[in-house]
Amino acid sequence: MSSQPRLLITMGDVAGIGPEIIVRAWPELTRFCTPTVIGDRAWLDRAQKLVSGPLAIPCDTPEIPELSGVRVGQISAAAGRAAYEFLREAIRRTLAGNADAIVTCPLHKEALHAAGVPYPGHTEILAAETGARRHAMLLFGDNIAVAHVTLHVALRDAVARISTEGVRNAVALLDDIGPKLIGRRPRIAVCGLNPHASDGGLFGDEEARIIAPAVERARIGGLNVTGPLPADAAWVRAAAGEFDAVVAMYHDQGHIAMKLRSGRRAVNITAGLPFVRTSVAHGTAFDIAGRGVADPTSLIEACRVAVRLI
Amino acid sequence: MSSQPRLLITMGDVAGIGPEIIVRAWPELTRFCTPTVIGDRAWLDRAQKLVSGPLAIPCDTPEIPELSGVRVGQISAAAGRAAYEFLREAIRRTLAGNADAIVTCPLHKEALHAAGVPYPGHTEILAAETGARRHAMLLFGDNIAVAHVTLHVALRDAVARISTEGVRNAVALLDDIGPKLIGRRPRIAVCGLNPHASDGGLFGDEEARIIAPAVERARIGGLNVTGPLPADAAWVRAAAGEFDAVVAMYHDQGHIAMKLRSGRRAVNITAGLPFVRTSVAHGTAFDIAGRGVADPTSLIEACRVAVRLI
Repeated sequence: MSSQPRLLITMGDVAGIGPEIIVRAWPELTRFCTPTVIGDRAWLDRAQKLVSGPLAIPCDTPEIPELSGVRVGQISAAAGRAAYEFLREAIRRTLAGNADAIVTCPLHKEALHAAGVPYPGHTEILAAETGARRHAMLLFGDNIAVAHVTLHVALRDAVARISTEGVRNAVALLDDIGPKLIGRRPRIAVCGLNPHASDGGLFGDEEARIIAPAVERARIGGLNVTGPLPADAAWVRAAAGEFDAVVAMYHDQGHIAMKLRSGRRAVNITAGLPFVRTSVAHGTAFDIAGRGVADPTSLIEACRVAVRLI
Repeated sequence: MSSQPRLLITMGDVAGIGPEIIVRAWPELTRFCTPTVIGDRAWLDRAQKLVSGPLAIPCDTPEIPELSGVRVGQISAAAGRAAYEFLREAIRRTLAGNADAIVTCPLHKEALHAAGVPYPGHTEILAAETGARRHAMLLFGDNIAVAHVTLHVALRDAVARISTEGVRNAVALLDDIGPKLIGRRPRIAVCGLNPHASDGGLFGDEEARIIAPAVERARIGGLNVTGPLPADAAWVRAAAGEFDAVVAMYHDQGHIAMKLRSGRRAVNITAGLPFVRTSVAHGTAFDIAGRGVADPTSLIEACRVAVRLI
């Protein structure tokens, strides 16, 4: 076991499906890595009773609020705070060299907000705690990676925040991670922001003003990059095998395609951190939490991708 | 033949793939409708030489500029003006009762613009020429219909233009067309505008302020409508068979999913006009025009859907 990669799996929001997908994934995970859960023992035991009976699952718990009052499928500040502390503990251990990668189960953004945590999600916490400057959330599924120039902001703000530097960073991150992720330098498509990538400037000017200069500079730098393309065309061409990676300007431009194509096989990757971090690509699923029916596929895929990237 | 539905097929931009997809589709089309081309005879003959040899294709031409100087795959004001006049002629004939529906081949928006036509595309021309107030472009493919609240505008403007009335109109159009299109009252999903449909107001407020009131009123009115949902979740659930129709807030939110799922089987429908109008769901494809290799599937599907809707 000792030669296998050491993964820390954070439990996320205990009121969601995190505990039960960990338990359901466990027998598969131990075949290819040495996982340790950073979470709450009582909620893990509860999930084991629900799913499988006892397994020998190592679980470490940092200082967190009392979670016995948390109810399955409900937003709570305590669970939000605990999810934050699980992640911070995992970051500390990994930075100290005691683990090779972090794989996160979902937290609930409203619970995080209720706990007064000043970050909207995992990616932003990871960036703040590690001081990473050039980072981005990637999605990966069925051999296509997508990087987002903006992420968890209102669409109104996303439009205002895209920048040439942001596009360049997203392209560079995909180029950096490509060889480990897919085994070669990636062929990257860059989406436009507007319908038909503005159709030559008829609907907006961000393509000519912001996106095209970033593509041009990346191309001069030797990267295999095409665009700005109409987003629908970029995805159709990527799905047909013409591209390995897509740069999306905003959340839904990447997520709609990735979720439709890859569903539970999709995995989140935070690129640009000082360590490997992957995540399930679904949420807390409060509507089905606590029943033991949640699908562990994305967690298993997230661990496999983490091992590939180490 | 006389009992078959009478379809007018407009040629669109002659420099694109319109002429050749008409010729390639023709033998199939005459099995289920009586089509007439509104276009240019010389460009139709050229496509026939390219594809099939002579077929008896009725083709009528309104007053248009000289098109002999137009070059395949190139933007020209003359071809843009001609595409506009083909459509206007088809509208006149259909309003006069001399045809049952219009099916359009693609025009090029920059050519239209170069011709000084003050509309960005087919849908806007149709609305202006018929005086239709409550109209919308629908996409239909693989038994899912999608209506857009905004369409050919910069994303920045789309964000500013979504309105409760616009959402209500899109929902109502889908509910109206559902029985003919899919044979029953449609189950409609309404997308949010922001990532995660704003996650309870964390990223934008358009869901609570604009979209939810429209959904609520439609539900009170007896429609089968759910939302606002995160756009990626709405599409995954629709693809899984949970919804028959999706309301998208902007172009790419609908098009990315539809093009990925249905590709060349996707069809455009303009709902809310005084007659049936469908269209191919692809562009002029200048890059492959004039080679005789363009796929006529979308045109055939567009004609089939038109017949269903008459």
